[in-house]
Amino acid sequence: MQITTKSIDFSTPLYLDSGRILEPYRITYETYGELDETKSNVIVVCHAFSGSHHASGRYTPTDKPGWWDALIGDGKAVDTTKYFVVCINVIGSCYGSTGPKSENHKTMKPHGLKFPVITIRDMVRAQKTLLARLGIFNVKAILGGSMGGMQALSFAVEYPDFAQIVIPMATTYATTPWVIALNKVAQSALLADPAFDGGNYDSEEIKQNGFAGLSAARMAGYLGYISPVGMSGKFGRNYVANDGLFELFGQFEVERYLDYNGNNFVKWFDPLSFLYLSKAINIFDIAYGYDSLEDALSRIRSSLCLLSFKGDTMFFPAEMQHIARTMQKLGKENVSYVCIDSDYGHDAFLVEVDKFCDLVSDILERKI
Amino acid sequence: MQITTKSIDFSTPLYLDSGRILEPYRITYETYGELDETKSNVIVVCHAFSGSHHASGRYTPTDKPGWWDALIGDGKAVDTTKYFVVCINVIGSCYGSTGPKSENHKTMKPHGLKFPVITIRDMVRAQKTLLARLGIFNVKAILGGSMGGMQALSFAVEYPDFAQIVIPMATTYATTPWVIALNKVAQSALLADPAFDGGNYDSEEIKQNGFAGLSAARMAGYLGYISPVGMSGKFGRNYVANDGLFELFGQFEVERYLDYNGNNFVKWFDPLSFLYLSKAINIFDIAYGYDSLEDALSRIRSSLCLLSFKGDTMFFPAEMQHIARTMQKLGKENVSYVCIDSDYGHDAFLVEVDKFCDLVSDILERKI
Repeated sequence: MQITTKSIDFSTPLYLDSGRILEPYRITYETYGELDETKSNVIVVCHAFSGSHHASGRYTPTDKPGWWDALIGDGKAVDTTKYFVVCINVIGSCYGSTGPKSENHKTMKPHGLKFPVITIRDMVRAQKTLLARLGIFNVKAILGGSMGGMQALSFAVEYPDFAQIVIPMATTYATTPWVIALNKVAQSALLADPAFDGGNYDSEEIKQNGFAGLSAARMAGYLGYISPVGMSGKFGRNYVANDGLFELFGQFEVERYLDYNGNNFVKWFDPLSFLYLSKAINIFDIAYGYDSLEDALSRIRSSLCLLSFKGDTMFFPAEMQHIARTMQKLGKENVSYVCIDSDYGHDAFLVEVDKFCDLVSDILERKI
Repeated sequence: MQITTKSIDFSTPLYLDSGRILEPYRITYETYGELDETKSNVIVVCHAFSGSHHASGRYTPTDKPGWWDALIGDGKAVDTTKYFVVCINVIGSCYGSTGPKSENHKTMKPHGLKFPVITIRDMVRAQKTLLARLGIFNVKAILGGSMGGMQALSFAVEYPDFAQIVIPMATTYATTPWVIALNKVAQSALLADPAFDGGNYDSEEIKQNGFAGLSAARMAGYLGYISPVGMSGKFGRNYVANDGLFELFGQFEVERYLDYNGNNFVKWFDPLSFLYLSKAINIFDIAYGYDSLEDALSRIRSSLCLLSFKGDTMFFPAEMQHIARTMQKLGKENVSYVCIDSDYGHDAFLVEVDKFCDLVSDILERKI
């Protein structure tokens, strides 16, 4: 499967929840499979916090595959021989769509900390605009996990006639103080490093020289991505080197894992996007602008298939279940809730695709 | 109750688990109540990570009370009209006992990162030496929570005839990778701040000017101290200011709480002690040096009364329960395990004393 990354520049304004405007702005995306004649085979996939539009396939045979490659592809659960799959980089991110390091067309300099705060609903509004530009005004399904699940849920509430099926995974209806605290720790670690320089850092320079604050911020994320039980299973109390016990920075396997992933993160993610996207997650509340959660959820007309993971210690299953129960109380019949047995933690939606790919396939084939 | 902080300098060597030696060294401590003639009314209280020897009372009427003042005092559960209570600052800490910022008597400069790695067993060995100097060779009870609970457990294993009763709370038999990961995030945030300067920072200067890395490190701790459910109850999604929603660093109450406690922490705790004590916690394994956990626990002759807290998401109740079950399998009858109903999280042992003070009193009075 040949993958092409595309971008479209919009000269029309994008109105943001904050009251501010992005104009002009760019949206970067990828598509997999072929759009059918009636444009009735579209599936939108929404990426998570540190994800990108590269959800499936490889650019070259040796490249890393897309982040949901186990789920999306020819003959896979999201079958690209049948469906036309679109994955769009969210605004505020750092993979092509307009974000805080994009150039302000007036000053010819990066927006930096003057970039407006972005909400999940803003991301969805931008994606809806991109899809309209592609001539797509309704879709078969929308899938996403974590921040991607927030977008999926937001699509369902904001555009009730847009998707037949919406599958939010490992997400919530309103971000809890626990996740806000996690993000606060990460943001504080990032800002403690003077390399941030008020957002004026040179992106290439930090990739080369490292950015300890961003590395520490990434490590904080793992406190939510892998559950305590998942960590015990994955790492135990194993040591990398036997002689490390009495060295102050002796390395348990879990420490080495965090070091590796923290340091590596700087090479592929942007500090300002980290701040903006974690802010978007913090302020996410699907009821924002509505009278209540009931009021917001009552708008949904898509089939809502909620998937949570038993061991998710970032967005707990009870949060997804609360959406299902609220929908049921509202008399909605188009809702299902499945809690997938898993110890791993929040990242199960990325690493344990084998546990839910059949379910997704069945939902898309309307067997469920 | 007039409180006096005392220190004793030891010129004898303290042999450490690492094979290194502290010589000379100082131990700082406080006592509450009167030692009876037969020295049979001693209770040792062990402090946690960021705690000190100041467990009870106030230095002046307007000072903050000791960290377990709700538990220890005249007429309280640990009744200082009956008992002679000793609380000793652990080595490696920053409140008087020898630690990394203490002066190396040879170089006349602080040890800094040359200070040896300290274990929980080293802390206990130092405390045992101090108590011996006071003429105390056995005690009625030892109590402690979190890192203090590790010390209590270590006392029970290393010195089986020392204490009649040992009450470890909110602790574990071996630190899990989850807690090691939490500490890793904290340490990484601390080290990301160049103010650390390889451990050569000026202690007074950072107290005045702040130390963002240590503040972020402290915030990371709260991800373990307060449970997700505890955070929802304490903070919800409340905002400090209504207009903060669209400010990048807009403050949820939980963010303000972390900011306040993180920034404040720099005024009363030391970065090097943070690194050394979190290392001591990471490497804590009560079975270290023994064939197995069973082998270590089989040594215990004290009455072991294990207290855990249902909502503790740092040291989970299952960890304490595992100690009790292992003891029971070994045929030991001198063990009890109580899990106290609480949502708050790990810090319940500090903030919900009312939930277990009667139990502690009954244990000390041998009603249980």
